[in-house]
Amino acid sequence: MSKTLIFGHKNPDTDTIVSAIAYSYLKNQLGNDTEAVALGEPNSETQYALDYFNLKAPRVVTSVADETDQVILVDHNEKQQSVSDIDQVRVSEVIDHHRIANFETADPLYYRAEPVGCTATILNKIFKEKNVEIPKEIAGLMLSAIISDSLLFKSPTCTAEDIEAAKELAGIAEVDPEVYGLDMLKAGADLSGKSIEELLGLDAKQFEMGSNLVQVAQINTVDPDELLAQETEIKNAISAVIIQQKLDLFVLMITNILTNDSIIIGLGDKVGAIDQAFNILLEDDKVLLPGVVSRKKQIVPQLTDILA
Amino acid sequence: MSKTLIFGHKNPDTDTIVSAIAYSYLKNQLGNDTEAVALGEPNSETQYALDYFNLKAPRVVTSVADETDQVILVDHNEKQQSVSDIDQVRVSEVIDHHRIANFETADPLYYRAEPVGCTATILNKIFKEKNVEIPKEIAGLMLSAIISDSLLFKSPTCTAEDIEAAKELAGIAEVDPEVYGLDMLKAGADLSGKSIEELLGLDAKQFEMGSNLVQVAQINTVDPDELLAQETEIKNAISAVIIQQKLDLFVLMITNILTNDSIIIGLGDKVGAIDQAFNILLEDDKVLLPGVVSRKKQIVPQLTDILA
Repeated sequence: MSKTLIFGHKNPDTDTIVSAIAYSYLKNQLGNDTEAVALGEPNSETQYALDYFNLKAPRVVTSVADETDQVILVDHNEKQQSVSDIDQVRVSEVIDHHRIANFETADPLYYRAEPVGCTATILNKIFKEKNVEIPKEIAGLMLSAIISDSLLFKSPTCTAEDIEAAKELAGIAEVDPEVYGLDMLKAGADLSGKSIEELLGLDAKQFEMGSNLVQVAQINTVDPDELLAQETEIKNAISAVIIQQKLDLFVLMITNILTNDSIIIGLGDKVGAIDQAFNILLEDDKVLLPGVVSRKKQIVPQLTDILA
Repeated sequence: MSKTLIFGHKNPDTDTIVSAIAYSYLKNQLGNDTEAVALGEPNSETQYALDYFNLKAPRVVTSVADETDQVILVDHNEKQQSVSDIDQVRVSEVIDHHRIANFETADPLYYRAEPVGCTATILNKIFKEKNVEIPKEIAGLMLSAIISDSLLFKSPTCTAEDIEAAKELAGIAEVDPEVYGLDMLKAGADLSGKSIEELLGLDAKQFEMGSNLVQVAQINTVDPDELLAQETEIKNAISAVIIQQKLDLFVLMITNILTNDSIIIGLGDKVGAIDQAFNILLEDDKVLLPGVVSRKKQIVPQLTDILA
């Protein structure tokens, strides 16, 4: 049998890259033949973590069926967020912490989803269940994933289990989560040298909500005003994406990682859903949502309620 | 918050009833407020197990949204196999061992599926992870579920984990699995006094395969010839179900639990899929499939490959 490939979602973030690396390590320790790959290059935050812990980014693939017949998904399950030829291979396992949608299999599989803040938190549990020690550098990456997904434990998606796992992993990795974490988040929020198109694609995910195709992109920053100085250019770029991807709605979250608020920019035929979902009125296509930092918990379910 | 209802699939079998009872017990021991319910009365096999271990069948419900806003699914996930108003409640957890299809949520959830032969095998593991002791009578029911789903460990769905779990549970329940198991299976295969319509509905499940709606029913027996004496009446009843349920295909498995073979009867517009899937030719709408006893592993994936 060919090697099982393990990968996370398109536009990879830290949790998606790290979970593929960590789970592949665990599976191989248990005697399986797997390789962590990625559906894109690491972003600056993930690269910071990889450099800090001296690990290499996974090989980037754009298709998988030419080299394997079996894959394991981490940190996602929705088809449109996965590799382009996902329909041509068997999904033998999924480890995830998102809603389940647009996913189906012909055969029974191992599916482990928990409503925690980060896939790495679930993996930390599975390492213990399987009695496999986590190497220092992988523990460091898993800690990075939890810090990334929880915005240093401040996101409403962050659970007691995430905090507990982060403590354990920080102990193994021998770093101070608060100090290391803020440095890592700032590295990720360094947007200099990136085109507007790159910024919109940094952390963008598509969702099917009823018959609507919705893209929700998120940009973390320490200075939203700097971004909004280019508001017109950003809107033009979003409009181009809407046409190109045939989207019904594009939502951009500009998230201030220091104040933990997001400015939302919404465009597309179904933009009215934003007003309804959050009981607000967009002005100039945008609005400040105080305390909103989580796409998964504070944006997607609310839009799904209106659009599905 | 209202009580969380826990239930398995329509046309309940032993694993579905038992898993609801066992998981509700576990959740309540952990401080939750749950109740096991069922989408139908227990069949004769399940009733035998309930009587043997002195436990009551769960309350039967046909809808849930009138009494709760949150449910836990065991032993199934596909919408068409679940309660009629499943779309009106939140699914907070799923414990299952089937393929995933026609299932989606707006929110993250706890989803635990493993490719083992029986939901009770997964529950046995979760009891240990949570450090909760399994009471003798619930262990007896969980053993019954494994025996039922594995046809006394002879089905190809039966894994080493199922056998191991059955051994542990038999120890707690203080029964000999082989002796108790055969008595239980025979009680389930006692078809006397049942109308043909009742026999067809005993263990019937619907599947969406591509745009096709397929129903696969299974009847366990120790004497297939006795059933086939009424072949014409059976086919007439199947044709009536096809019209009533707007099915594209109906597959009946008449499974001999002593020889572990099944006679398949297929009817419906898409009946040609059976010939293709199993590389056989139906004669008089039927064929013997030697060694085939598992709908999940030996019928559904093969038909899905052709029809989806």
